[in-house]
Amino acid sequence: MGRGGAAAHMLRRMNRFRKFVFSSEGWPLLLVPFIPIALVLELSHADATVIFITSALGVIPTAALMGRATEELAARSGPGIGGFLNVTFGNAPELIIAFFALKEGLQEVVKASIVGSILGNILLVMGAAMFVGGLKHKVQKFDRTAANVQSTMLTLAAVALVLPAVFQLVSGGGLPDPAAEAVEFSSDEKSISVGLSLILLGTYAAGLLFSLKTHKDLFNPVHGDDGEHGEPWSVKKAVIALGIAGAAVGLMSEILVGSISEASEGIGLSPFFVGIIVVAIVGNAAEHWVAIYFAARNKMDLAVNISIGSSAQIALFVAPVLVLLSFFIGPFPMALVFNGFELAAILLSVIIAQQVTHEGESTWFEGLQLLAVYAILGLTFYFV
Amino acid sequence: MGRGGAAAHMLRRMNRFRKFVFSSEGWPLLLVPFIPIALVLELSHADATVIFITSALGVIPTAALMGRATEELAARSGPGIGGFLNVTFGNAPELIIAFFALKEGLQEVVKASIVGSILGNILLVMGAAMFVGGLKHKVQKFDRTAANVQSTMLTLAAVALVLPAVFQLVSGGGLPDPAAEAVEFSSDEKSISVGLSLILLGTYAAGLLFSLKTHKDLFNPVHGDDGEHGEPWSVKKAVIALGIAGAAVGLMSEILVGSISEASEGIGLSPFFVGIIVVAIVGNAAEHWVAIYFAARNKMDLAVNISIGSSAQIALFVAPVLVLLSFFIGPFPMALVFNGFELAAILLSVIIAQQVTHEGESTWFEGLQLLAVYAILGLTFYFV
Amino acid sequence: MGRGGAAAHMLRRMNRFRKFVFSSEGWPLLLVPFIPIALVLELSHADATVIFITSALGVIPTAALMGRATEELAARSGPGIGGFLNVTFGNAPELIIAFFALKEGLQEVVKASIVGSILGNILLVMGAAMFVGGLKHKVQKFDRTAANVQSTMLTLAAVALVLPAVFQLVSGGGLPDPAAEAVEFSSDEKSISVGLSLILLGTYAAGLLFSLKTHKDLFNPVHGDDGEHGEPWSVKKAVIALGIAGAAVGLMSEILVGSISEASEGIGLSPFFVGIIVVAIVGNAAEHWVAIYFAARNKMDLAVNISIGSSAQIALFVAPVLVLLSFFIGPFPMALVFNGFELAAILLSVIIAQQVTHEGESTWFEGLQLLAVYAILGLTFYFV
Repeated sequence: MGRGGAAAHMLRRMNRFRKFVFSSEGWPLLLVPFIPIALVLELSHADATVIFITSALGVIPTAALMGRATEELAARSGPGIGGFLNVTFGNAPELIIAFFALKEGLQEVVKASIVGSILGNILLVMGAAMFVGGLKHKVQKFDRTAANVQSTMLTLAAVALVLPAVFQLVSGGGLPDPAAEAVEFSSDEKSISVGLSLILLGTYAAGLLFSLKTHKDLFNPVHGDDGEHGEPWSVKKAVIALGIAGAAVGLMSEILVGSISEASEGIGLSPFFVGIIVVAIVGNAAEHWVAIYFAARNKMDLAVNISIGSSAQIALFVAPVLVLLSFFIGPFPMALVFNGFELAAILLSVIIAQQVTHEGESTWFEGLQLLAVYAILGLTFYFV
Repeated sequence: MGRGGAAAHMLRRMNRFRKFVFSSEGWPLLLVPFIPIALVLELSHADATVIFITSALGVIPTAALMGRATEELAARSGPGIGGFLNVTFGNAPELIIAFFALKEGLQEVVKASIVGSILGNILLVMGAAMFVGGLKHKVQKFDRTAANVQSTMLTLAAVALVLPAVFQLVSGGGLPDPAAEAVEFSSDEKSISVGLSLILLGTYAAGLLFSLKTHKDLFNPVHGDDGEHGEPWSVKKAVIALGIAGAAVGLMSEILVGSISEASEGIGLSPFFVGIIVVAIVGNAAEHWVAIYFAARNKMDLAVNISIGSSAQIALFVAPVLVLLSFFIGPFPMALVFNGFELAAILLSVIIAQQVTHEGESTWFEGLQLLAVYAILGLTFYFV
Repeated sequence: MGRGGAAAHMLRRMNRFRKFVFSSEGWPLLLVPFIPIALVLELSHADATVIFITSALGVIPTAALMGRATEELAARSGPGIGGFLNVTFGNAPELIIAFFALKEGLQEVVKASIVGSILGNILLVMGAAMFVGGLKHKVQKFDRTAANVQSTMLTLAAVALVLPAVFQLVSGGGLPDPAAEAVEFSSDEKSISVGLSLILLGTYAAGLLFSLKTHKDLFNPVHGDDGEHGEPWSVKKAVIALGIAGAAVGLMSEILVGSISEASEGIGLSPFFVGIIVVAIVGNAAEHWVAIYFAARNKMDLAVNISIGSSAQIALFVAPVLVLLSFFIGPFPMALVFNGFELAAILLSVIIAQQVTHEGESTWFEGLQLLAVYAILGLTFYFV
């Protein structure tokens, strides 16, 4: 029993370790070392490109911890408040990153990262989930009605995100140049943006009432009950973890955003590309992993809700909050006027989101088509 | 029995009065006094803003009477002709208002009111119906096939309404300025507009054949059978009422249109906003009330048919008829070239109409989303 | 039995002849004489307009023979390779015509004919099939899932076909003039076009895997089993026929393309109109006939698959192959930058394709609506 037993024990431990690392809460831990590395590099004024890459990797575990802590806190606080917490803190990392970009005056990067998050969730996250899930399961079903509510919210948001640009074009003004850092628009545009933001936030609040109260049976909230997580956290532990994670996300985001302009020059990518593709992927890494995880287990309802729901949340909550914040932070208030690429990307991805979800079924090929659309957009943006 | 009986009798009478006033044919009667008031003010050359407001309020009861008379006449004349009457006179008030605007040379106001009627029916009327209906009933069902036929008609109309603008842009011309009164376009544009109008009218005629003859079972015509109306009218009474209502609509419309330019200055709104929001609401007030009435009684099929059907009718019947009329009335023929706001609004609302109706189900939140889109458009148009 | 028997025999023969001529493989034979006529006229340098018309008519029987030979070869080679053959040679005529146009340097005609084929298949072919089928059958059903896969492919293709134009507009460049023969774009645009083409071809290959292998049960391949065709061809006969047909299509296409510029002047149509309407109709004449044939026999699945499938194939296979070929043929590489009409037509027809197919049902009126949209586009293009 001697050596054989020890080897078997070893193997079991390694197996458990491997299982943990590849579980949805395990793997981000591997990236934890990048947090102090980014911090040290930043303090020692190292090369911006290296700072950018390490802080980008460092954001991922902090965002994952934030997601986990929110979930645990939500699980402890009853469906109503729990759902509210889940939904409100769900996109906190994106909001925090954008907050620091706003503070730095990088309004065009903020707008690019808003659009990038919408695109990334619909095309990359949902695409990867449908593709991976579809490799295992021939046809996967999900609830059409819930998906439809959220894709209609996206369409509504698209109207709000497109109209200020129409106003700009009809009044003879130009759309922002993708290469600009920040563009100031007329006071009419600012007023329109504030008004639209209030309408979006009001609709978002009504949507919470709808999905958490009057029609909550449409949205099955069996999120944490799938046996993956170990013991539940105490409320105290969850609140402390949320606080630490929030601070860490903030720290990493500030470093990340501070290095964007210089780093993008170093890597040879435009700040626009960095905002719309790189920052969006970093900010949504956690959603990405979780959606694929559920899709592979044939829980397509959750995967679709996470991806389209996150997109809708970015558009109806994060974007308007940033507009309102911009009156207090940064050089001048930010108007919701997007550039031509962003407008085309919003409109096309909303049409596709509707088309892919209206049937309530998905296959690997549908997933691949979404990924192909993301590749098409990414390729074009690369040349900006 | 004395005083108690008199009080009870009084109460019953008051109840009946209240019931009548708040019924779909009662409340417009309250606005009847505005008809002579508007007339007197107009004759005494009062302030344009006051004339505008009173005549706008005066249009509503005359349009309601016209709707009621059409319905009664339709009920007396068998399903085929009845349906035809209903459908043809259904948008007579909009047509009459636009006719006088055309005569005044206010072509841009005419086009704005066409787009405003399409938007208003899809977003405001259907939105309010779904919202009010959804407050009482958790999920409301309606026939998808009938809704789909009409939303496809709207898409077809959108193609026709968008292409002349594409032609204009590709040939290097500009779109009309929303602040203009009337813009003359090239003779090619006029020919295109006439051709498109004939295609739209032909499709409209085919649609009548479809919905009244070959596939009439799809469209349930149990419109007046819901016990609200009292005794049926005789044909004679209906024809006389239709004649009086038509004349009154015409009179009010002429006064209304004559005061638009001056009044819009007085109120501080652009003629564009007045055309696309105010005139459209006034012209569709009757549909509005009826659609909400049916939605509250869970007759969603009727509510959706009224709203999307009216939009389709405006696009496929009223708009082309106005183009053809413009060759005989007004300064020069009107081309179907819409401005940037109108184009964006048409395209976005057609996409939303399709998205909201393709499932055959609605909830209060879907209604609220439609109202939010209307608010977004209204807010932006306010700053034009 | 004498005279009566002879007359009856005569009648039977005539009936059989009539049946053959009006069958889907018979009627193109009537156009065979135009092949030598076009050849003789071309060699004798006759009037370009006459050459154009005769060669256009001559393309039709050669394309029909090519389709038939491909089908027979496919039927002999098992579902996997058979499907591949069918799908790959299915749009060979369009590819061959475009190849010669590319060689002549008529890149704008090539792009117009790509868009024209997409439009023609969705609007004209599917419209005519739904209309004719719907006259006989009240409501026709088809498989939504298969139709949806293909309409999503079209949307994906639309993204790829629209983005280079967005890139062009955002970088401050103009879209090609519809009257131009060929426009050279920046090297960035060429790189984007190549990248997009590779993504489209990859998606196309994945789509073959999906429809011929992993989900082949969704697409019922009972194409040739409907008893119309007579005896099956031998592989040898099919290969020889394919070779002859290919050579004949090539010959006719070269003559056709060589006469476009001069003929379009003669007829008074722009080369743009000839490319987007005339060439597209000629190239798709065979699909057209076959789709109507199946629709009339209530095999709507096949009719819809042929029309939307052909559109998707043109967009995901023919268009990218032509972009790659343009690096070796013609004056300079062709970028996928479409003009304003083409962009509007692509976007609108993709939205309509989705709307008409998502229900899995069709009626004569839906067919007529598609035809009306085609008429609207054709009318507008006529004035270019």
